[in-house]
Amino acid sequence: MPISPLAPAQFPDMPPIAGVRIATAAAGIRYADRTDVLLAVFDGNTSVAGVLTRSKCPSAPVDWCRTHLKGGRAAALLVNSGNANAFTGKHGREATRLSAQLAARAIGCPSSQVFLASTGVIGEPLDATRFSAVMRELVTNAASGEWQRAARAMMTTDTFPKGATAVARLGATPVTVCGIAKGAGMIAPDMATMLSFVFTDAPISPRPLQTLLRQAVVDTFNAVTVDGDTSTSDTLLAFATGAAVSSGAARITSLSDARLPALRKAFEAVLGSLAEQVARDGEGARKLIEIIVEGAVSKSSARKVALSIANSPLVKTAIAGEDANWGRVVMAVGKAGEPADRDRLSIWFGGIRVAHKGERDPHYDETAVSRAMKNPEILLKVALGLGRGRDRVLTCDLTKEYVAINGDYRS
Amino acid sequence: MPISPLAPAQFPDMPPIAGVRIATAAAGIRYADRTDVLLAVFDGNTSVAGVLTRSKCPSAPVDWCRTHLKGGRAAALLVNSGNANAFTGKHGREATRLSAQLAARAIGCPSSQVFLASTGVIGEPLDATRFSAVMRELVTNAASGEWQRAARAMMTTDTFPKGATAVARLGATPVTVCGIAKGAGMIAPDMATMLSFVFTDAPISPRPLQTLLRQAVVDTFNAVTVDGDTSTSDTLLAFATGAAVSSGAARITSLSDARLPALRKAFEAVLGSLAEQVARDGEGARKLIEIIVEGAVSKSSARKVALSIANSPLVKTAIAGEDANWGRVVMAVGKAGEPADRDRLSIWFGGIRVAHKGERDPHYDETAVSRAMKNPEILLKVALGLGRGRDRVLTCDLTKEYVAINGDYRS
Repeated sequence: MPISPLAPAQFPDMPPIAGVRIATAAAGIRYADRTDVLLAVFDGNTSVAGVLTRSKCPSAPVDWCRTHLKGGRAAALLVNSGNANAFTGKHGREATRLSAQLAARAIGCPSSQVFLASTGVIGEPLDATRFSAVMRELVTNAASGEWQRAARAMMTTDTFPKGATAVARLGATPVTVCGIAKGAGMIAPDMATMLSFVFTDAPISPRPLQTLLRQAVVDTFNAVTVDGDTSTSDTLLAFATGAAVSSGAARITSLSDARLPALRKAFEAVLGSLAEQVARDGEGARKLIEIIVEGAVSKSSARKVALSIANSPLVKTAIAGEDANWGRVVMAVGKAGEPADRDRLSIWFGGIRVAHKGERDPHYDETAVSRAMKNPEILLKVALGLGRGRDRVLTCDLTKEYVAINGDYRS
Repeated sequence: MPISPLAPAQFPDMPPIAGVRIATAAAGIRYADRTDVLLAVFDGNTSVAGVLTRSKCPSAPVDWCRTHLKGGRAAALLVNSGNANAFTGKHGREATRLSAQLAARAIGCPSSQVFLASTGVIGEPLDATRFSAVMRELVTNAASGEWQRAARAMMTTDTFPKGATAVARLGATPVTVCGIAKGAGMIAPDMATMLSFVFTDAPISPRPLQTLLRQAVVDTFNAVTVDGDTSTSDTLLAFATGAAVSSGAARITSLSDARLPALRKAFEAVLGSLAEQVARDGEGARKLIEIIVEGAVSKSSARKVALSIANSPLVKTAIAGEDANWGRVVMAVGKAGEPADRDRLSIWFGGIRVAHKGERDPHYDETAVSRAMKNPEILLKVALGLGRGRDRVLTCDLTKEYVAINGDYRS
């Protein structure tokens, strides 16, 4: 699989996080000659929070995380690629229990503090004994700052590893946030579940961390779509080791803590970058599409209109064909079911207004628009002219390669 | 464009309807060397009913029909292909007024009794004077039974003309229902709006006709999807000439008329066949997919789950690749947001159970499933195991040709 033309030039330079050690290994779950397991070990009193798929048919690891997030404490994270352990029934539940036990025994922690995520083929039993063969190696090798190796171990149809980092100040103390992600088909259950793990040395209790994470997701991971499909396994977990206490930062225990907005901003920067990288690695993608809807009756109405555009196969194929087909944008606005008035609608491609107040803009320069459509990044703006609601989502185009990747995969 | 491999062997043999005369002409709106205008002229006291797109950005002809359906009477139907007269602002409204006037003058009727539909490019002004050049020819040539010519004149990306017919008995009197349709991209605003017109000699007042039509749409046109996109121009109109009064059938004026179910059944047969033909002519389609969901908590819940499966790009590309990828079906069930229990779910492809009670069915024969997936018609059944709700929708697969048709169209 060639690397996406929309990939960043390189993996970012990401500092270690005190209290987080990571190792990867090749357990041979499905792939040959590559790593497919990632273990993160956390020191001391690490808080955990999570946002999990809304699917009514979640994978066994999602069920596991949902149960154990209630405890709020994490000692380890065990992730594998190659098998999603989804739709595997009783056997799948047994596999999560066994996987957590293996890690717990090797580290010396309760298995309820081991968090799990799996991505890969659905419906095939996951052989948890694969982990036992590599567990000692993982615990021994765990070291700080192995972000890129970690991101690589969980790749499936991803064409590049995804990482992002940001710094926040809690009073006088700088804290770091580092995140990794995988996910290419947004969200194919076979190969392209979205997994993301975020780590920080900020001292923060589980409850404010959970609230912060839920807020930070709204305009980042929840504002990106590749094909509108939702995985059985989507998992975002945040781990806060609290190591910055030793640099003088007091623990954040309440939502009214004045230092919280700065930390949330850093989380939003990391999650925003990771979400954009997921769109840039959309299966078969050749264009990154940024959709801005303004003038809606509310932000949530703008979001629905933007997602209706972003998930329209007709809009996405038009952009793949470098066609500023604003008629299909009108169609997608019209089908969103949100307040819209055809005769107030304006549409821009690449900053050039092509439609205005319900008609083609008579003044636009077709040559300039054609040139803009050749860019790898396409800005599509819609003004509804009704109110002050504004929102932004990211997506990618729909190409023949998407069909090839998803149609030729198993056969 | 080669004819869809899923096309019926031939256009059906459809009898004339007393009181309906049809003519077609080449007005050169967009296409060379083919007809692009259709005029139907109705005798006497013809009732009309309609179901129109729910788009918040409807085309000018949709607005026109919505206004004049209130009158309940039709003297003519004027349809063109090549230009949708959608998102054309004031000019578009003017074009509908002028088009209706031209037909009204030629026939001798109020222009409020002329119904309009347009399909083709969006956002380009429709030059209504094109109709005046052919109007006399149309009125002079109008003849009974020209169904196939009518169906051909409104084709855009359709690869075959679509027609269907059925007979009902109103007491002792047989009445006929004939319908035509176009629509291939379900529903691309550029080229593949769904238009359908149904004609009958049954004597029925506008109000019961409207109710009958709304009911008949539920399990026919509303249960078919190609790509989940909704046109600005979708239009279904029914015209009842009442000519069967002369054969002794009394007029249906009330919803409690005991003869209504027989007539509704004939409408459902015609609309059901036309809807299936639309799916068979889905852009780039190579497989007709019938999705049955049973065991849901209600019929409407079953419909939502079935549409979630039918509109999933991952399910559609898998079937294009002849892959019985039930994992993606689980994903689509899970994302529908309707009650579902992973551990009660069973899935069949081509009558073969591949997943049962939350796990892969250990007994299924991979060779038999692979053989079934090579058929041009794929039956996909999902049992949720929760209740007695059942529903059925039709769709088609998502192929590279879909992307080519919709990505290469304007550029």
